Amino acid sequence: MNSFGRIFRVNVFGESHGESVGVNIDGTPAGIPLKQEDFLPDLERRKGGARGTTPRKEEDLPFLKSGVFNDRTTGAPITILFENNNTRSADYAKLREFPRPGHADFVAAKKFGGFEDYRGGGHFSGRLTLNLVAAGVIAKKILGEGIKINAVIKEVGGFADAEEGLEEAIKAKDSVGGIVECTVDGLPIGLGEPFFDSVESALAHAAFAIPAIKGIEFGAGFAAAKMKGLEHNDPIVDATGKTATNHAGGIVGGITNGNQLVFRVAVKPTSSTPKEQQTLNIASGQVETFSVKGRHDLCIALRVPVVLEAVTAMVLADFMLLEMRVPRVWQQ
Amino acid sequence: MNSFGRIFRVNVFGESHGESVGVNIDGTPAGIPLKQEDFLPDLERRKGGARGTTPRKEEDLPFLKSGVFNDRTTGAPITILFENNNTRSADYAKLREFPRPGHADFVAAKKFGGFEDYRGGGHFSGRLTLNLVAAGVIAKKILGEGIKINAVIKEVGGFADAEEGLEEAIKAKDSVGGIVECTVDGLPIGLGEPFFDSVESALAHAAFAIPAIKGIEFGAGFAAAKMKGLEHNDPIVDATGKTATNHAGGIVGGITNGNQLVFRVAVKPTSSTPKEQQTLNIASGQVETFSVKGRHDLCIALRVPVVLEAVTAMVLADFMLLEMRVPRVWQQ
Amino acid sequence: MNSFGRIFRVNVFGESHGESVGVNIDGTPAGIPLKQEDFLPDLERRKGGARGTTPRKEEDLPFLKSGVFNDRTTGAPITILFENNNTRSADYAKLREFPRPGHADFVAAKKFGGFEDYRGGGHFSGRLTLNLVAAGVIAKKILGEGIKINAVIKEVGGFADAEEGLEEAIKAKDSVGGIVECTVDGLPIGLGEPFFDSVESALAHAAFAIPAIKGIEFGAGFAAAKMKGLEHNDPIVDATGKTATNHAGGIVGGITNGNQLVFRVAVKPTSSTPKEQQTLNIASGQVETFSVKGRHDLCIALRVPVVLEAVTAMVLADFMLLEMRVPRVWQQ
Amino acid sequence: MNSFGRIFRVNVFGESHGESVGVNIDGTPAGIPLKQEDFLPDLERRKGGARGTTPRKEEDLPFLKSGVFNDRTTGAPITILFENNNTRSADYAKLREFPRPGHADFVAAKKFGGFEDYRGGGHFSGRLTLNLVAAGVIAKKILGEGIKINAVIKEVGGFADAEEGLEEAIKAKDSVGGIVECTVDGLPIGLGEPFFDSVESALAHAAFAIPAIKGIEFGAGFAAAKMKGLEHNDPIVDATGKTATNHAGGIVGGITNGNQLVFRVAVKPTSSTPKEQQTLNIASGQVETFSVKGRHDLCIALRVPVVLEAVTAMVLADFMLLEMRVPRVWQQ
Repeated sequence: MNSFGRIFRVNVFGESHGESVGVNIDGTPAGIPLKQEDFLPDLERRKGGARGTTPRKEEDLPFLKSGVFNDRTTGAPITILFENNNTRSADYAKLREFPRPGHADFVAAKKFGGFEDYRGGGHFSGRLTLNLVAAGVIAKKILGEGIKINAVIKEVGGFADAEEGLEEAIKAKDSVGGIVECTVDGLPIGLGEPFFDSVESALAHAAFAIPAIKGIEFGAGFAAAKMKGLEHNDPIVDATGKTATNHAGGIVGGITNGNQLVFRVAVKPTSSTPKEQQTLNIASGQVETFSVKGRHDLCIALRVPVVLEAVTAMVLADFMLLEMRVPRVWQQ
Repeated sequence: MNSFGRIFRVNVFGESHGESVGVNIDGTPAGIPLKQEDFLPDLERRKGGARGTTPRKEEDLPFLKSGVFNDRTTGAPITILFENNNTRSADYAKLREFPRPGHADFVAAKKFGGFEDYRGGGHFSGRLTLNLVAAGVIAKKILGEGIKINAVIKEVGGFADAEEGLEEAIKAKDSVGGIVECTVDGLPIGLGEPFFDSVESALAHAAFAIPAIKGIEFGAGFAAAKMKGLEHNDPIVDATGKTATNHAGGIVGGITNGNQLVFRVAVKPTSSTPKEQQTLNIASGQVETFSVKGRHDLCIALRVPVVLEAVTAMVLADFMLLEMRVPRVWQQ
Repeated sequence: MNSFGRIFRVNVFGESHGESVGVNIDGTPAGIPLKQEDFLPDLERRKGGARGTTPRKEEDLPFLKSGVFNDRTTGAPITILFENNNTRSADYAKLREFPRPGHADFVAAKKFGGFEDYRGGGHFSGRLTLNLVAAGVIAKKILGEGIKINAVIKEVGGFADAEEGLEEAIKAKDSVGGIVECTVDGLPIGLGEPFFDSVESALAHAAFAIPAIKGIEFGAGFAAAKMKGLEHNDPIVDATGKTATNHAGGIVGGITNGNQLVFRVAVKPTSSTPKEQQTLNIASGQVETFSVKGRHDLCIALRVPVVLEAVTAMVLADFMLLEMRVPRVWQQ
Repeated sequence: MNSFGRIFRVNVFGESHGESVGVNIDGTPAGIPLKQEDFLPDLERRKGGARGTTPRKEEDLPFLKSGVFNDRTTGAPITILFENNNTRSADYAKLREFPRPGHADFVAAKKFGGFEDYRGGGHFSGRLTLNLVAAGVIAKKILGEGIKINAVIKEVGGFADAEEGLEEAIKAKDSVGGIVECTVDGLPIGLGEPFFDSVESALAHAAFAIPAIKGIEFGAGFAAAKMKGLEHNDPIVDATGKTATNHAGGIVGGITNGNQLVFRVAVKPTSSTPKEQQTLNIASGQVETFSVKGRHDLCIALRVPVVLEAVTAMVLADFMLLEMRVPRVWQQ
């Protein structure tokens, strides 16, 4: 299934070098102001072009095909389409011989019997994160001004200073990974459920939908495994539920506790490294030398923050609609 | 929602000090041999009593209330009930005054308006992991002999030697956290989808349903964030998809690649530390000294492996039924 | 899947001659008064014993196994169990030879490979409508006093006077079908969606979950097919949406319009007729004479009204929770 | 939710006079031949223009925006877009004053707070059945050559001869209703479940997603309510499950029995009758005389058969994928 959410339901579609990528969103309340320009700031943040990101440039204009009338949401499903104009598929012809290490080429061919669109990763492409960002823009509107989501780069290639990490990578002519942290302020107490619908479950589910993410931790996270109980516990200090520390990252028993929500994700190095690799040539059946062609990010983590904010907003909007009973017609 | 799975659908219910806990499972193929004894080994592994775990002893006998006939599954929903016999609810009366740090007492009262069953954590209790273990036993049968799931303690309180970590905790009269690693051998290539139904998404979703888990990482995980692309990439070495290294932990593009599935979870220290804590007294509105009464695990991580295996089996059984089209009538 | 509902989620389980039948219900708001006695009036209405219904008597006592504390719902999943005490399975041994016409014996054996519990229809038994009635009792509480559901017998064996229809059947020593009408007063405007989540879609889905129902019509229903537009249209007469006529049965565009909801279902004659039948003997491979043994209803339609009310309440409670944003904690 | 299906998942979107209508379909196996021309015959059958149908003409060309590569499905979500070129929105300006009887104008305004796209019924328009027909074309391919779905007009305005019924309507200058029957040959035994996932539940759910349908009956349907058990029961005559009669319409216990599937739907007269109506003027608050402008079908039932076939194919494809474990890669 290429869909997510219970009330605020997001369906992504499209291929990197096909005609388009897009997203269909059901469950948005009616009456929310929405027009093409609203999407541009977050889409701009995601866009390639900065140092360490791919030189591929697309207009990335979101076309609103349904669900919006007179610049407001109608309550009907919203479909947003992005056209693919700037593709150079010839770059990818070689993938059929060399399934790229770290990419889905090999498993996709096995799973879909060779019928998959392999150009530029096809449906597996990071280009589909455009859809997530677009859905996130709407989700942020549902959350309203009072809830602030903020994701930032914490580390690139092991360096707290991202610039330093990039320098290293450029020098090494290799790609690098990174860590992104996301915080949310202003959440009410009570979102989530114990067990399967815990806020951690939902956020992790959504975060791992972002290509290249290989780990997630909430609050103290993996460091908590080395802590003692008294040290890790967050004492409650007043009747609003405020805690003295926030090792729980704002979630206890799967439920938001009114403190800042904090989590971090680990992003692997871009699989398409500029370096030569030794890997299987399917045609010859031999391990051979292979270099990835095409235009790629040196550090895909740099593009993750806005996407992580988007899926976080999607998850939280869904919880707000479900738990806080946000009305079907928007009021703000 | 207290349910999980698309084809193999698990619904958990019950309260720690209520009449029972139990699980309702839909989507099991017909014809699988199943009787009470089949559950006992994994339930025994989960049971308290060992050093570092709670002295509370329950019979923990699973009663098969539906879906089984002549010691085989019928294809109809299976309901399994565990009775609660050995409860000492009086221990918990004080929770209404002191919502325990690290526990759901405070958020549950806010969310459910004070109507929640607060005794022993009620529905939020780790006792409900009995249900997960029971569902896991059935899931493992669906996976069959060829797929081996194995979860082990990797660290307790920061020590690779669990005994050493426990000693430390006992000496400090405090609880400790830990790290559990789960591996799966024998998986076919092709389980999972890109984006929302990635194997990472599903496993993380299920793992965070286990109380006390605060982080998850696949393959190299957080270490990948510090690696370079050439180092992290797993070169494919033969036509079966075998890779020279396994930094991806057996999943690329959200899909199993036929190599060993590997992931680790971080378990926070048991919130019910034997130590005194400074926290809010709801009645007085003041921060006061509070000690948790009741019987608790010193290191809850010690009980996690069998539960983590269980949710892993649930996720994989669901993928096998959905993707590999395991027949509705079981054949093995 | 043996489940239904998006927010108010009902999972049924059990077998006619197994250990129990029961229901697991997720999504009930916290704080609703609920105790065993609340179920008895509707369970009594469903119970056999009256003329035209089966002489099998069960205590039919609902045991609340989870989700209720101090006689109020807690917001956690509610599980209700009914024990099977009064079974005479020997009656059913012959079914393996003669799959009963009109029953699921033949298809169940094919679908579940012979592993199904065939005693008394097993999981396919009308006894599982106990579960629906129990879920309906909770759903009616969610709907509150202001919404009144009422289902009545309109016809038995073609007679508007049910007694007359039964007389006929007794005289003919055969079973008969019937028609049941359900009305709902007090619904708000705006429940439902166009297309797949229309109120008609949801009610029909739930109604056909009741064994023996073979047709459903809303408002004028099949008669509408013979009407002209001007005759069928319901003119709106005031700003509350009240209509002069109600041929639409209270639903337009899939959405409740504030007028009385009206629909009817057709119930087939009980398949277990006392008469001899000519049908296949699986063992001999020949068509032979066969009589159904066991205790059965002469007119199953007589037991449908309370079950139809129950599934109607389930559907409407789900819509109210989803659309009208009924709070998670109950207030009335 | 504007979506339907468990494995074969269909999401519809769009507005009658907006930019487009379209459909997003997830869960299609990879490798199915699919190109624009494949949709044309069924789209042509649905198209207006014949006697009794609306003179509005659209190209109705389906644009495949994703999920197809080299004229075959890839296994990724398929999105199909229809552009709206031939709209005359000015016709509908008056709807804000006179909510049309039989239409969703009034309830939509209440539900969506006036933010709905009201032009031509907006999202509530029959134009969205284009999406259903398109999804049906793909579903029919999944079912393959061996399963034949056929829907035909049985009655128009009470006349078995549709032409006669239309004459009557034209003479009366009014719209008329009708009855459509759908049969399916070649289904395997064993699709469906008892209770909520009965084949009747799923087909009724989908059928009531078609605007204007107000009743559905399976096999003998409402006539069964007047029958006796011996008369209604279908004796099994051979080991393949063939029955002597087919009053059950091919479904027992919610499960297909290998005989022909038969059901009928009642279609109400087109709400947009050419006749003058007395109904509320929202602006004046008075009941006034009103005539519907715009182009409409005299008998909407005439356009239902291909749409009914489509939703039937959707339901059955979903069951085949789920129950019969149709492989993820298409083989035929």
